[in-house]
Amino acid sequence: MKILVLNCGSSSVKYKLFDIDSKSVLAQGGAEKIGLEDSFLKLTLPNGEKVILKTSMPEHHSAIQNILNVLTGKEYGCIESFDEIDAVGHRVVHGGEKFNKSVLITDEVIEKIKECYDIAPLHNPVNMAGIEAISKLMPTVPQVGVFDTAFHQTMPAHAYMYALPYDLYKKYGIRRYGFHGTSHRYVSKRACEFLGVPYEKQRIITCHIGNGGSITAIKDGKSVDTSMGMTPVEGLMMGTRSGDVDAGVLTYLMDKEHLDSAGVANLVNKKSGVAGISGLSSDMRDIEAGVAAKNERAILALQMYEYRITKYIGAYAAALGGVDIIVFTGGVGENQTITREAVCKPLAFMGVEIDPEINKQIHGTECVISTPASKVKVVVIPTDEEYMIASDTKAVLSGKMQ
Amino acid sequence: MKILVLNCGSSSVKYKLFDIDSKSVLAQGGAEKIGLEDSFLKLTLPNGEKVILKTSMPEHHSAIQNILNVLTGKEYGCIESFDEIDAVGHRVVHGGEKFNKSVLITDEVIEKIKECYDIAPLHNPVNMAGIEAISKLMPTVPQVGVFDTAFHQTMPAHAYMYALPYDLYKKYGIRRYGFHGTSHRYVSKRACEFLGVPYEKQRIITCHIGNGGSITAIKDGKSVDTSMGMTPVEGLMMGTRSGDVDAGVLTYLMDKEHLDSAGVANLVNKKSGVAGISGLSSDMRDIEAGVAAKNERAILALQMYEYRITKYIGAYAAALGGVDIIVFTGGVGENQTITREAVCKPLAFMGVEIDPEINKQIHGTECVISTPASKVKVVVIPTDEEYMIASDTKAVLSGKMQ
Repeated sequence: MKILVLNCGSSSVKYKLFDIDSKSVLAQGGAEKIGLEDSFLKLTLPNGEKVILKTSMPEHHSAIQNILNVLTGKEYGCIESFDEIDAVGHRVVHGGEKFNKSVLITDEVIEKIKECYDIAPLHNPVNMAGIEAISKLMPTVPQVGVFDTAFHQTMPAHAYMYALPYDLYKKYGIRRYGFHGTSHRYVSKRACEFLGVPYEKQRIITCHIGNGGSITAIKDGKSVDTSMGMTPVEGLMMGTRSGDVDAGVLTYLMDKEHLDSAGVANLVNKKSGVAGISGLSSDMRDIEAGVAAKNERAILALQMYEYRITKYIGAYAAALGGVDIIVFTGGVGENQTITREAVCKPLAFMGVEIDPEINKQIHGTECVISTPASKVKVVVIPTDEEYMIASDTKAVLSGKMQ
Repeated sequence: MKILVLNCGSSSVKYKLFDIDSKSVLAQGGAEKIGLEDSFLKLTLPNGEKVILKTSMPEHHSAIQNILNVLTGKEYGCIESFDEIDAVGHRVVHGGEKFNKSVLITDEVIEKIKECYDIAPLHNPVNMAGIEAISKLMPTVPQVGVFDTAFHQTMPAHAYMYALPYDLYKKYGIRRYGFHGTSHRYVSKRACEFLGVPYEKQRIITCHIGNGGSITAIKDGKSVDTSMGMTPVEGLMMGTRSGDVDAGVLTYLMDKEHLDSAGVANLVNKKSGVAGISGLSSDMRDIEAGVAAKNERAILALQMYEYRITKYIGAYAAALGGVDIIVFTGGVGENQTITREAVCKPLAFMGVEIDPEINKQIHGTECVISTPASKVKVVVIPTDEEYMIASDTKAVLSGKMQ
């Protein structure tokens, strides 16, 4: 069964074509700078080689048409025609309270996704553009929507409610939804498979940390709390996002810097985080280099970044009544060994002990990095949201989606 | 040595007159509704009886004059003349980065307090009104300023910095300052005296929870993190304050509800918290009654209130690398037994075990409520900020303020 996975962003479309039964990737790449003059396709060939193809892509429809053309093309293609694609799985960012699992896309589902435009104005419309493009280009192919928020729909009210007037929840759906759900679900399940323990009987904290970042508390297979909120700006310090910040600071800055809501949103989403503190870069690899060069603000940015992860792990351990497994994933979680070590060090009191020698060697591969004596298992699991989307797509089509 | 302690709010002045050498309270009470037509003095007599004296108090100066008149008056007085007051200690809310301990009030100190008006516009000017009134009414008496923020000045940068552009810290002093410092300092020290352990060698988490609320992590006698931020709105869920909330929610609500900065400030400070969720009351005693009556939103409010305290304790345990002592204080911390029990229950994994029978009996008295086997000592310590202010005042005047 061949499944095409699409992840549409505002100016990009990433794709991966899976042969899901053999769990193999047949083709992958992305359309970049959609809508700009210098738009291009970037393919990763089976041998790992990258190919750049400059081509005009004024909007998502033409980007997806280009992707399909490459997939069926002579030079880089791996299928004869569109008909070989059995299904398309889409990442959809915001499912609000409407979706608690992946679903077959129908007219009714499309309506519901559109009803979430209001709380995800930057994401859901471009996800929908992908769905509409496929509907036109491949009218008979079944499509499945996989939501970033769905996994977190199991959170209890005391975790998802903000302490704002209750009416605002009723009126606008103001609450914590959480994101990265597909990743948290994938790595938590995979960690249990890898460790050979039953998923339904674990207290797990998954740290998806990279340029964006969130932490999730998972009890018996269900998300019970997560650090991103109604929007992805809450929680951890990120590449350019502030994460948690005093509401009083925002009103103060509105007055002082004459900011309106768009100004505040721009500040906390684009100008803050690791980039805002370091003044160097939003990329943790640059920060790590800055730390090596003894740049004071790089050091501060790294300490803040790590400290907040440590605090969230502590908070979620308390929320879970203890923790059995901590999972690191995402660009930083998979690769930045100093951060994993710094985050875990203060957690010895709750039975976390990582092996510094093993930790140092692990970059992007599945591995237990805690010592055999550690009460809490600490594991690195590279995330694979695309695989999860493909796998869900198959499950939905075969009636096995739980 | 007789020390008068003044705590000036926007429309009230609370006072306590101490004989600090015998640690006894000679007189106490407050001026209420200052500036309103129905302003009055409320005295608590030595036998506990309350007396209300209606009197005109258009501003803080006349309120303090009235208080001094009562202290020296025939009917309720306890001193012959103002001259018997050896010093006046003032609560000052915001000391910014300028004050890390209590200080003798001089012209230079007054200037610095005024420089903090900008970040504490509701508090510092009224605190200053108290200082100025005393300067006029008792020109020779030494005055001491005791700052809510001072105790937290030991926080490391990775705890006090927000992940906002670094320039905003330089330009406006945007950072976490924390509040309730006098209370956190008092109860943490007192807990160690009470337990007979050295203050300088403990990891302590102090939960000052009431209508306002904050939690502090204290390592070796120094505050290393605290839940309130640049303003008192951050952190825990409070009576009418939201505590932590997604910045993205605020910008969303600004657009939807057409709120400016004052509208947002009003929302998160006055309309949120326990009152906003329950729709019943900002007072936890009413919420407890609502829970007993099975009111669903009272139950939700209480669960949220407790859950956030549990999470902060977990986060700070991680920040401290473990915890030796947890202290409960404040109106709820001293009295609401169900909340202490609910907060501590999930913390068994880190060695917290309270004795439910002892816990139930403790209302406003110093007591260890953990079991003898509990690795972490859990204690109730009624706070006494006024005593701490008096004690600091004496220490400053005798050159012993550390």
